[in-house]
Amino acid sequence: LSGYAVPLTPDGKSSLTPPPPWHYSGDCIAVEYWADPAAVAALLPIGLTPDEESEGRTFFWFLDWQFTGSNDEHTDPARYQYREAFILVEARLEGRPVNFCPFIFVDNDAAIARGWIQGYPKKLGSIYQTRSFSAPSAAACPLEPGSRFGASVSSHGERLATARIELREKVTDPAKVFNRPTTIRRYFPSLSGSQQGKPAVDELTLSLMDNLTFSDFWTGSAELSIPYVEGEDMDALAPREVGRGFRFGMSYSVSDLPVLKNYLA
Amino acid sequence: LSGYAVPLTPDGKSSLTPPPPWHYSGDCIAVEYWADPAAVAALLPIGLTPDEESEGRTFFWFLDWQFTGSNDEHTDPARYQYREAFILVEARLEGRPVNFCPFIFVDNDAAIARGWIQGYPKKLGSIYQTRSFSAPSAAACPLEPGSRFGASVSSHGERLATARIELREKVTDPAKVFNRPTTIRRYFPSLSGSQQGKPAVDELTLSLMDNLTFSDFWTGSAELSIPYVEGEDMDALAPREVGRGFRFGMSYSVSDLPVLKNYLA
Amino acid sequence: LSGYAVPLTPDGKSSLTPPPPWHYSGDCIAVEYWADPAAVAALLPIGLTPDEESEGRTFFWFLDWQFTGSNDEHTDPARYQYREAFILVEARLEGRPVNFCPFIFVDNDAAIARGWIQGYPKKLGSIYQTRSFSAPSAAACPLEPGSRFGASVSSHGERLATARIELREKVTDPAKVFNRPTTIRRYFPSLSGSQQGKPAVDELTLSLMDNLTFSDFWTGSAELSIPYVEGEDMDALAPREVGRGFRFGMSYSVSDLPVLKNYLA
Amino acid sequence: LSGYAVPLTPDGKSSLTPPPPWHYSGDCIAVEYWADPAAVAALLPIGLTPDEESEGRTFFWFLDWQFTGSNDEHTDPARYQYREAFILVEARLEGRPVNFCPFIFVDNDAAIARGWIQGYPKKLGSIYQTRSFSAPSAAACPLEPGSRFGASVSSHGERLATARIELREKVTDPAKVFNRPTTIRRYFPSLSGSQQGKPAVDELTLSLMDNLTFSDFWTGSAELSIPYVEGEDMDALAPREVGRGFRFGMSYSVSDLPVLKNYLA
Repeated sequence: LSGYAVPLTPDGKSSLTPPPPWHYSGDCIAVEYWADPAAVAALLPIGLTPDEESEGRTFFWFLDWQFTGSNDEHTDPARYQYREAFILVEARLEGRPVNFCPFIFVDNDAAIARGWIQGYPKKLGSIYQTRSFSAPSAAACPLEPGSRFGASVSSHGERLATARIELREKVTDPAKVFNRPTTIRRYFPSLSGSQQGKPAVDELTLSLMDNLTFSDFWTGSAELSIPYVEGEDMDALAPREVGRGFRFGMSYSVSDLPVLKNYLA
Repeated sequence: LSGYAVPLTPDGKSSLTPPPPWHYSGDCIAVEYWADPAAVAALLPIGLTPDEESEGRTFFWFLDWQFTGSNDEHTDPARYQYREAFILVEARLEGRPVNFCPFIFVDNDAAIARGWIQGYPKKLGSIYQTRSFSAPSAAACPLEPGSRFGASVSSHGERLATARIELREKVTDPAKVFNRPTTIRRYFPSLSGSQQGKPAVDELTLSLMDNLTFSDFWTGSAELSIPYVEGEDMDALAPREVGRGFRFGMSYSVSDLPVLKNYLA
Repeated sequence: LSGYAVPLTPDGKSSLTPPPPWHYSGDCIAVEYWADPAAVAALLPIGLTPDEESEGRTFFWFLDWQFTGSNDEHTDPARYQYREAFILVEARLEGRPVNFCPFIFVDNDAAIARGWIQGYPKKLGSIYQTRSFSAPSAAACPLEPGSRFGASVSSHGERLATARIELREKVTDPAKVFNRPTTIRRYFPSLSGSQQGKPAVDELTLSLMDNLTFSDFWTGSAELSIPYVEGEDMDALAPREVGRGFRFGMSYSVSDLPVLKNYLA
Repeated sequence: LSGYAVPLTPDGKSSLTPPPPWHYSGDCIAVEYWADPAAVAALLPIGLTPDEESEGRTFFWFLDWQFTGSNDEHTDPARYQYREAFILVEARLEGRPVNFCPFIFVDNDAAIARGWIQGYPKKLGSIYQTRSFSAPSAAACPLEPGSRFGASVSSHGERLATARIELREKVTDPAKVFNRPTTIRRYFPSLSGSQQGKPAVDELTLSLMDNLTFSDFWTGSAELSIPYVEGEDMDALAPREVGRGFRFGMSYSVSDLPVLKNYLA
């Protein structure tokens, strides 16, 4: 039986996701903001500590992704194109500045599978962002000062976050904006009798991004709301103050997953 | 009570679509092919005649659209961004070469409303096309020779058409490729007693596209399949021969609708 | 070319809906409540007047529908099963007590088409209601005192209304609860030049329900919320006071549509 | 940090699923059929052997499920009601007759999570089945001889299976029809360097169903098709011969997961 993920079959075609390396390219809208530092601290797993200098600094990301493995999966967009929204909070790992991802939503099951395998706690959502098209029109939203983009994420028919940004200027050195590695928590529960309270897998991992590349990187002003929704905890990270908005292209590949801590060891 | 379309309310905000002008910009994958000329002829309304020189020439289009009215609707992408797939067959109107649209699918209710109002016979579907992203990656699909794009349309969980194209070269004069005006049939049924067999509105209309602009226009090779699906007639236009594939940006505005014939007069 | 609705084809199979008669059977959760009488009055079309005795009485309905035409369409549930949510406000037509439907959402394009043709101002939504299953379980929600049902409607990822009811007792005479005929506004806009401001069809119609039958009719307590959502007007009918909740089966057929007023005559 | 599944938060509300016990009640359409015995054998994990007496006997199931945990989750149907389709093949475990589940689709992320945790290899799909409503109508589909039900499952816009059954008679002893325990494979991949080819969790488990109850159990004739779809392996289990159809209610609870084999030990 073969397949990188379930279901396992003789040919392995049904597997939720092809094996790594996984290649991604997409467009991103990101909003810098400050949440309650105590709420950020309360979401950190053991081994991560609050970044005192951050004072609750957080980023809300919206991504339109195209995925491919080694077999031109990007030419099957109904199956492999997807949209994503997530939060990255700032923290420290043994003194080193890192990000940690406490909430993330995608609209595709292969993306859920790859997320869980890495440690991204993905749930299903409905995500949209304004796109920039090349044919000129009031609807085109070109990459130029004054262009306005919107983005939103919903789950089970409830709006979890809404953002809007307005472009002001191009950023020449994106690596100065996003320069922290991202940590995540790889976690798989148990259900069997006495093991039920203890996970079968519980690790702090590093989201390793090979060949991370940014393109067409713009910044400007931003708005963000994260309303209270019954059955969700994400509004604990609602904005106290909103900073800059960003709009850019981004690509990377995934081929490995460094384990920083094994919580079961 | 106000609102361009239903529902009508005191403030008019709930209306399925804002009033014209309607502005569109999007990315398109189109496949030229030849269907059975008799099947094309059988779909033409009165007043349109087969184009003998076309020999069944037909285009299958896939569009990723961004819409705005006069109020920055493009910054609310969850409501106003949508995807579309349709067929244009070639015909003659009093000797003049035109297109006619017999089948079209969209994934948004505002787009269905605007379609019906113009004469596009829109049904709900699920449409995808490979996108071209700016950040370099095996998943980016840049606009260059050899890049491969896929596209598909499904309805009620059944695949209605699948296309793939491979880019070869840029086209310098897109107006030579797409130079026919498109005719459609504006049609609204009756349900009342003796009127039940006769529509309340039945017109041949012209899809007027203000400021039609093409961008980044590429052509190459193509594949297309339109399988038989129970409860649909579109496979009557299945390809006998497939021609060129195209990938381009496109924008236009809609502010008027010339009525070519009133079938009820 | 044949087909009751678009698209028209030689075989008529692609038509959004088969021709009448249309047969429906479904399960319903309905909540009686009182809205601002001025808001109700402001939504009535010419010819309907506020029902002074109603003092803003309104019902919010959630329906799980099964549809069939004359060809066993109910055995193709992916295409013909759907869910619906709508509001009925109380009014008077020449002194006679009637309902009027100002807002309605469905999750199926055939249902949108049949709605527009009759005069229901349908938009696309995502609708859910708790079901009652026969196999006993904490999840079964049997039809008995104390059972609690929930229902919700969302559109474009935003929650438009949420209801909960708790059953108390069976109702022996449902016809005493729901005894008003429902009026709707059949409306189809124009887009052509000077006609643009005037609809092509504008009628007050009667939603004629042949063989209307209720079953398993229960009543109890209820909760209802209709929050403000950007781009929607339905919160104008938010509850000031909530009355009884109802849960029942309901069936009827549609074969005709009496026109009460032609606003264009 | 609390929560039975990811994401883990201080309050645990965001967790994809509440902790067990999990309670289910639903309606089911099941079709008995015979697949290629070699294809069935090829899908069995180590420890399971073909059931020679079965000769490829297999069941295709469609379920409309209602879920609740310990907090009235069934009153939030937008989040906790879902639909499912799966295949059970017959096999032997140390001589004992069992079922094994090689393919399963659901339309809800909480259901995906609970499935993976148990060993059901769930992917996202769109599933429908004809329902039986109590209000009499051509659309009601009552539980009586001659009633016809349809069911289907699609994934990424492609139809994976379609079934139809026609009721003939009530079954008095359902336990004689479905009397095999179901085994599944609990599997969670690794991504880290040298572990990449080896799963982190790989167990043969038993799907333990507390208080399994059937209701309104009918049988009759059946049709089933499982077409070839690119990127899926399920057509390997296409029917060679179709047996009886079944339609019934079913409920059970899940509170434990016996591990039959640990493939990593």
